[in-house]
Amino acid sequence: MSADDCTVGIDFGTLSGRAVVVRVADGEELGSAVHEFESAVMDDVLRASGDKLPPDWALQDPDDYVSVLRTAVPEALKAAGVDAAQIVGIGIDFTASTPLPVLADGTPLCRLDEFRERPHAYVKLWKHHAAQSHADRITRLAEERDEAWLPRYGGRISSEWQFAKALQVLEEDPEIYDRMERWIEAADWIVWQLCGEETRNVCTAGYKGIRQEEGYPSRDYLSALNEGFADFVDAKLEHPVSQLGGRAGSLTHEAAEWTSLPEGIAVAVGNVDAHVTMPAAQAIEPGQMLLVMGTSTCHVMNSEQLGEIPGMCGVVRDGIVPGLYGYEAGQSGVGDIFAWHAEQGVPPAYHEAARERGVSLHEHLSELASEQRIGEHGLVALDWHSGNRSVLVDHELSGVIVGLTLATRPEDVYRALLEATAFGTRTIIDAFEAAGVPVQEVTVAGGLLRNRFLMQMYADVTRRELSLLESEQGPALGAAMHAAVAAGCYAGITAASAAMGRVRRAAYTPDSEASSAYDALYEEYATLHDYFGRGANEVMHRLRQIRRGS
Amino acid sequence: MSADDCTVGIDFGTLSGRAVVVRVADGEELGSAVHEFESAVMDDVLRASGDKLPPDWALQDPDDYVSVLRTAVPEALKAAGVDAAQIVGIGIDFTASTPLPVLADGTPLCRLDEFRERPHAYVKLWKHHAAQSHADRITRLAEERDEAWLPRYGGRISSEWQFAKALQVLEEDPEIYDRMERWIEAADWIVWQLCGEETRNVCTAGYKGIRQEEGYPSRDYLSALNEGFADFVDAKLEHPVSQLGGRAGSLTHEAAEWTSLPEGIAVAVGNVDAHVTMPAAQAIEPGQMLLVMGTSTCHVMNSEQLGEIPGMCGVVRDGIVPGLYGYEAGQSGVGDIFAWHAEQGVPPAYHEAARERGVSLHEHLSELASEQRIGEHGLVALDWHSGNRSVLVDHELSGVIVGLTLATRPEDVYRALLEATAFGTRTIIDAFEAAGVPVQEVTVAGGLLRNRFLMQMYADVTRRELSLLESEQGPALGAAMHAAVAAGCYAGITAASAAMGRVRRAAYTPDSEASSAYDALYEEYATLHDYFGRGANEVMHRLRQIRRGS
Repeated sequence: MSADDCTVGIDFGTLSGRAVVVRVADGEELGSAVHEFESAVMDDVLRASGDKLPPDWALQDPDDYVSVLRTAVPEALKAAGVDAAQIVGIGIDFTASTPLPVLADGTPLCRLDEFRERPHAYVKLWKHHAAQSHADRITRLAEERDEAWLPRYGGRISSEWQFAKALQVLEEDPEIYDRMERWIEAADWIVWQLCGEETRNVCTAGYKGIRQEEGYPSRDYLSALNEGFADFVDAKLEHPVSQLGGRAGSLTHEAAEWTSLPEGIAVAVGNVDAHVTMPAAQAIEPGQMLLVMGTSTCHVMNSEQLGEIPGMCGVVRDGIVPGLYGYEAGQSGVGDIFAWHAEQGVPPAYHEAARERGVSLHEHLSELASEQRIGEHGLVALDWHSGNRSVLVDHELSGVIVGLTLATRPEDVYRALLEATAFGTRTIIDAFEAAGVPVQEVTVAGGLLRNRFLMQMYADVTRRELSLLESEQGPALGAAMHAAVAAGCYAGITAASAAMGRVRRAAYTPDSEASSAYDALYEEYATLHDYFGRGANEVMHRLRQIRRGS
Repeated sequence: MSADDCTVGIDFGTLSGRAVVVRVADGEELGSAVHEFESAVMDDVLRASGDKLPPDWALQDPDDYVSVLRTAVPEALKAAGVDAAQIVGIGIDFTASTPLPVLADGTPLCRLDEFRERPHAYVKLWKHHAAQSHADRITRLAEERDEAWLPRYGGRISSEWQFAKALQVLEEDPEIYDRMERWIEAADWIVWQLCGEETRNVCTAGYKGIRQEEGYPSRDYLSALNEGFADFVDAKLEHPVSQLGGRAGSLTHEAAEWTSLPEGIAVAVGNVDAHVTMPAAQAIEPGQMLLVMGTSTCHVMNSEQLGEIPGMCGVVRDGIVPGLYGYEAGQSGVGDIFAWHAEQGVPPAYHEAARERGVSLHEHLSELASEQRIGEHGLVALDWHSGNRSVLVDHELSGVIVGLTLATRPEDVYRALLEATAFGTRTIIDAFEAAGVPVQEVTVAGGLLRNRFLMQMYADVTRRELSLLESEQGPALGAAMHAAVAAGCYAGITAASAAMGRVRRAAYTPDSEASSAYDALYEEYATLHDYFGRGANEVMHRLRQIRRGS
């Protein structure tokens, strides 16, 4: 490789795509640009028809993804001030599971005139939750048949994933289902647009497509779900899977025109946003756990061990790095719980004080909370406001606060909620270790790493040093690394990560006195966790039933 | 009695005294006046010295009580437009336990120059909580010695009561203790000022002075507490107790000048604010429970049965009406929990909306809450923000909310807190009935009876009709009734209550569908009540310990 070689990484998020130009030699981010999706998230009405969508729907228009290629990539190139000729490869990462129905040549059904006003012809964004009943049936049938793949997904298949969404299409709009020749993740679809080749990346297929080394769920199982679903895998999904860092193909003439990049450069196999961040944070060795902390937290880690850890979102061989088992766990609510409290539970005086100090309400609350001795608030909370993914896999659980008095202040509750999420992460780490999958180091990426008080708390609660991703655009950087590997600049993602990754090691060190103080609170958390979460008192389930009026 | 006969009732509250002139024949309230205490509550500094008081202290100056006689009574008379000659008697009720140290002639020690700057020379208001360690010793020793009176007080003697406060004086300012010749409740002291006779009313002596039919705690017990305390009862407390409705004496010349009432009219034996409200609300028959609902709730009821009901504040023969057992139970926090949530947990938009609508924040929240189906909020709370008096008698308990989600709104929490207090009252009623003491009717007095949504909820949750006191000045009306009995206008309080009481019977009727819906939530409350309150998980005690740093 030459010292000037660069690659482009594109991170396709929920509302926009971000392109970053990265120097291959050292990972320097030379320039970037963002393009907002014109149709954003269609969760209220379908733009083409103006028709109201049912509750829990969330659609996107794939043409918005192509617009990112046409605008953000040339702009990033310009911002970086590099010559297009320096670009040797391009890679992407995408939200997942975000699948769409297409023809055999990749044309999205929603682009066809006859289907333009049919909701099921569009991309179902990861947060489309309207296939819950389909997901429940998928899980129940797998339990009944004792399907070997179910435990790899923590015993529950999510409504967010590929199979539930495809089954919904079949049962609610069979004409669309019949017409679709491929059912493909947007991650793989956009790569197809770049290189003209259909590929299926092992990461999305594994974590969101229920694909294990033994392949997808059997025809037998599928036909038991619904006769018409029997050939779903064979007809619409099956394709050799591609390893991450592999070359999906070469940039086509058309895509070169869109992006103003050189025709023929390497196009990397697609990837998922959380997982692709690991090499960016140099957290791909076995035992290096990455926490991507935002509205929720995604915990990803490689290991040489295959352990049956309760409540995983998935464990997939080669799922993150070839040759290793990639684990994904998750906390359903983290930053959104803090936001809920700040928005719904804090009186006017605090808003005014924050405004006067010129800080955000979160900063104000964090500061007030940080002035307390550990345990001074007298509270312990359960962070289940969005249910619990890992390790209980129970979306019907809910949040709890114990210890309220007339002296309890908003910053007390705020701190108890921060602590609850730290205890939730400790619960997950403990589950890994209990299953014989050691966790050696914790690295944090995502927006919440800017909260120093929260970071120190996580270090103290987990009794581990915390490393931080040192890039504001970790996923795009990770995608650019995969492009560098696909272009042959590095022998593999490990080498690319070592040269191009950005991490501040041990940015936070646990304080042993604080750790001991938190231990006492964690013990209370664990007792309540098991009491409310493991069947001793099913009050949360009953409250949900009462709430639904059933 | 003549048709024009009137009496004066004076309610001595926490911050003021209210005098009401009442027509004896029918209980018509003809006029009233309020006088604020000049020294109010001294909980920060002692007014005479400017010295800072320790935490949890709360003192008053007895001269403020005399000022009520001098100002509020003549003003009430004027407002009523009646001739002083029509007044045939005067009665009072007081907060309790609110004791003070005096000389043998009734002179308060704080009135003596040498003690003017000594905090222990003043009245200790009911909410003086600085004798907690003394109260704890009193309870512990009674347990060890298996004292027969302890179960009558729910197994715990409060720091608010007479004995704990006197022991504090002995141990912290022995000179004051030695000098005081009598230790007397303000209820009895103000009667002394009116008629020149020391009396001890059976109500305050029974509920606040640990006096049962067998008398006060023994000399043996007292000396085990502290050698110097051995003759406390004999030297400073003992006096024949007076029945309620009895005549303590006649209005002295001096008091007649203060009040501008006729010298020689009947002065009734003193009484306690909650208890004296019962005849005002015509709730003195066995099985008629009165709920005095304000910041906390006091539950008082007469019965022919003597039951050992867990968690009573006290059960006293003749304590409310001669010949019956008077029960007092309590919820430590009710209105103050709602206020805490409104002040500490409601965001600016709600404050603005209430302002725009021209209603209070409580009204706004109640209205929003009332629009929900029962259980729609998905929450269940424990109302222990100030601990739990009845039936658990555990002040170290604390509040809980279960079922929180990102969709939980402030009005949801508000409603769950209202419900929790209703469930707390149901728990108390159930305890009475389980002990063989039937509860036939529920009547409500106190500020919260104005919240119609709350009242309907209490009717539904308890499956009982709710009657309402129809007077804004129930305690003063009750005191005026006792004055009428003392003056000989009625043979007893039952007859006075029948003629002069004001109640709206069955103002609220339970809705059986709503009752059934609440039953499901109450079951969850009861399960959590026992889990957190009866030793299965002592998390609340441990959190308090952690909070105190011990």
